Amino acid sequence: MTAAKPHRRLHVKADGRKLHLYGWQPHTLAPTVEIEPLPPPDPHSRWHPLRREWVTYAANRQERTFKPPAEYCPLCPTQAGGFAGEIPFEDFEVAVFENRFPAFHPQAPEPPVLPVETAPARGSCEVLVFTPAHRGDLAGLSQARRELLVYAWADRYVELLERDGVQCVLPFENKGEEVGVTLHHPHGQIYAFPFVPPVQQAAAATFREGPALARLLDRMGDAYTVAARDSMVAFVPPFARFPYEVWIAPRRPLPGPWAFTAEEAADFAALLGETVARYDGLFDRPFPYILSLHAAPKGEERTFHFHAQFYPPLRTAEKLKYLAGVEQAGGAFLMDALPEETAARLRAVAPR
Amino acid sequence: MTAAKPHRRLHVKADGRKLHLYGWQPHTLAPTVEIEPLPPPDPHSRWHPLRREWVTYAANRQERTFKPPAEYCPLCPTQAGGFAGEIPFEDFEVAVFENRFPAFHPQAPEPPVLPVETAPARGSCEVLVFTPAHRGDLAGLSQARRELLVYAWADRYVELLERDGVQCVLPFENKGEEVGVTLHHPHGQIYAFPFVPPVQQAAAATFREGPALARLLDRMGDAYTVAARDSMVAFVPPFARFPYEVWIAPRRPLPGPWAFTAEEAADFAALLGETVARYDGLFDRPFPYILSLHAAPKGEERTFHFHAQFYPPLRTAEKLKYLAGVEQAGGAFLMDALPEETAARLRAVAPR
Repeated sequence: MTAAKPHRRLHVKADGRKLHLYGWQPHTLAPTVEIEPLPPPDPHSRWHPLRREWVTYAANRQERTFKPPAEYCPLCPTQAGGFAGEIPFEDFEVAVFENRFPAFHPQAPEPPVLPVETAPARGSCEVLVFTPAHRGDLAGLSQARRELLVYAWADRYVELLERDGVQCVLPFENKGEEVGVTLHHPHGQIYAFPFVPPVQQAAAATFREGPALARLLDRMGDAYTVAARDSMVAFVPPFARFPYEVWIAPRRPLPGPWAFTAEEAADFAALLGETVARYDGLFDRPFPYILSLHAAPKGEERTFHFHAQFYPPLRTAEKLKYLAGVEQAGGAFLMDALPEETAARLRAVAPR
Repeated sequence: MTAAKPHRRLHVKADGRKLHLYGWQPHTLAPTVEIEPLPPPDPHSRWHPLRREWVTYAANRQERTFKPPAEYCPLCPTQAGGFAGEIPFEDFEVAVFENRFPAFHPQAPEPPVLPVETAPARGSCEVLVFTPAHRGDLAGLSQARRELLVYAWADRYVELLERDGVQCVLPFENKGEEVGVTLHHPHGQIYAFPFVPPVQQAAAATFREGPALARLLDRMGDAYTVAARDSMVAFVPPFARFPYEVWIAPRRPLPGPWAFTAEEAADFAALLGETVARYDGLFDRPFPYILSLHAAPKGEERTFHFHAQFYPPLRTAEKLKYLAGVEQAGGAFLMDALPEETAARLRAVAPR
């Protein structure tokens, strides 16, 4: 990214966890109240021999905060003398800190000896807070704030991928109670894995064979487009697995947000906002989704084509798409709605 | 299976769909009222190049029956002069018929030409009704009825796998509104796929390398056992992806229920009932789950080790486990609960 560079401040919290404050303005406030330390987490992973994937066990996560009332939101700024949240400052722009209830941890202990293969869950789980405001979404943020968020993602990718043992970094946002959100304050998460998860393994294998996504963008035509900018396009993939699934991809293959030009960063930020605005307008209600960023796992930078994926759980304003027998036990997705039709419906929404 | 052989009656419905009636008694009733025919279904599949899996589109499924009142249940016996359900007889034991809203169909048309690879969705979707009673579950059925059900599964496997183009057969039961059930009458479904779904592909690859499940059963010890019979064991796999996940497996590797001895069929039927009874007792409420049967895909019979898997969506009596960013966008499962602990809790339940 070549435009103006944001400021970053590192604060080490009382329990040793790192907090990064990203801002267009330098952050100079004094810390207020710190949250109390917990015992060190001790997650571990076990190999699932039939699915050929790692499953990660983190009993410490049973205690995680579950739908607190707004006045006890751990992601709101912490006032001097007030309730101790995760961010011990009275204001901030974008904040990223190590999760208090991590499933992966840089110092995860040796795993127990079990009748299956195990591995230490060494990696990292971070929480990324988009705004000090307790309510809102990506559509309601200013374009400057969304560009700051894109900068923060890029910065976290670079720092986490540089660590020994980290193989893949996955930023995501769970939005809405329908996808299990336990904290309503607008935020995302970033996982740094000591392995390449199955979804990223499959994509990397395809990209090693050829530029599958660039080829699709070339061939696809306008029927699948939801919104577009010069460098970037938001579209319903012709092989969508969820109704109203949307992807955002740069027109040229690039490995991750750290390789964005200033124009690409701005276009990506704008299309994130426009996609969420169209979603919120579709059924005239806050629209739940899982948003994930798919960048190159370590070593795949030459061929991987970065993109974002939105998975919405709604089929209609009230009906959910459930992942039941065929999806869960087979991994074969069934769809009632055709991507051509959902793309047209999303194009027809006037973003609010 | 070598014990007494049940009776099977084939009835072709007014719209041409096949209905099989399985019973310990011969079925001789005259048909009553037939459901009205629909236009032929036209599903097709599209290749997801980044996940390397087929996604199947069936717009005809948008019209499927959604939580009808009990008096319009399409799975209850159809009385003469009454509401026309799917089974045009006043009584039956176990019934299997071709789904009116199939995602795969033996005569699925050629797929449309699209900017992605497509394939005809040629296969079959069947509905398997466990009992004429509108309410109930596998725990409440008699052992004789459960053994009849196991016989019906075995019979469907054999008939469907013999068809040209069918590569894999997947029977499952979705139970409870939490997993999206739209019909409460106790029933399961059977999908016959023209491809091997990703989950079965991975398992088959592991079994080709060695007897992974037999080895696990040998090594596992009693800590993971929920219930056992001479030929069969119900256990929480040490790499469970859901809290209270349970598998039922024969102690000796065998490719599917069609290869069961009479003892294995009886033990499998009994453990299905006992597992569901323990589930219902765990939180003292009807316990939702996805049950799936994993038998050898075509050509994998020599090495595949058949087993059943239960995926329960509940973490506690009220809290659901959601599949959110990490699970959906990475395919990497996170667990709070240790299999050793959930197995002990299920062992401690007095089955009702």
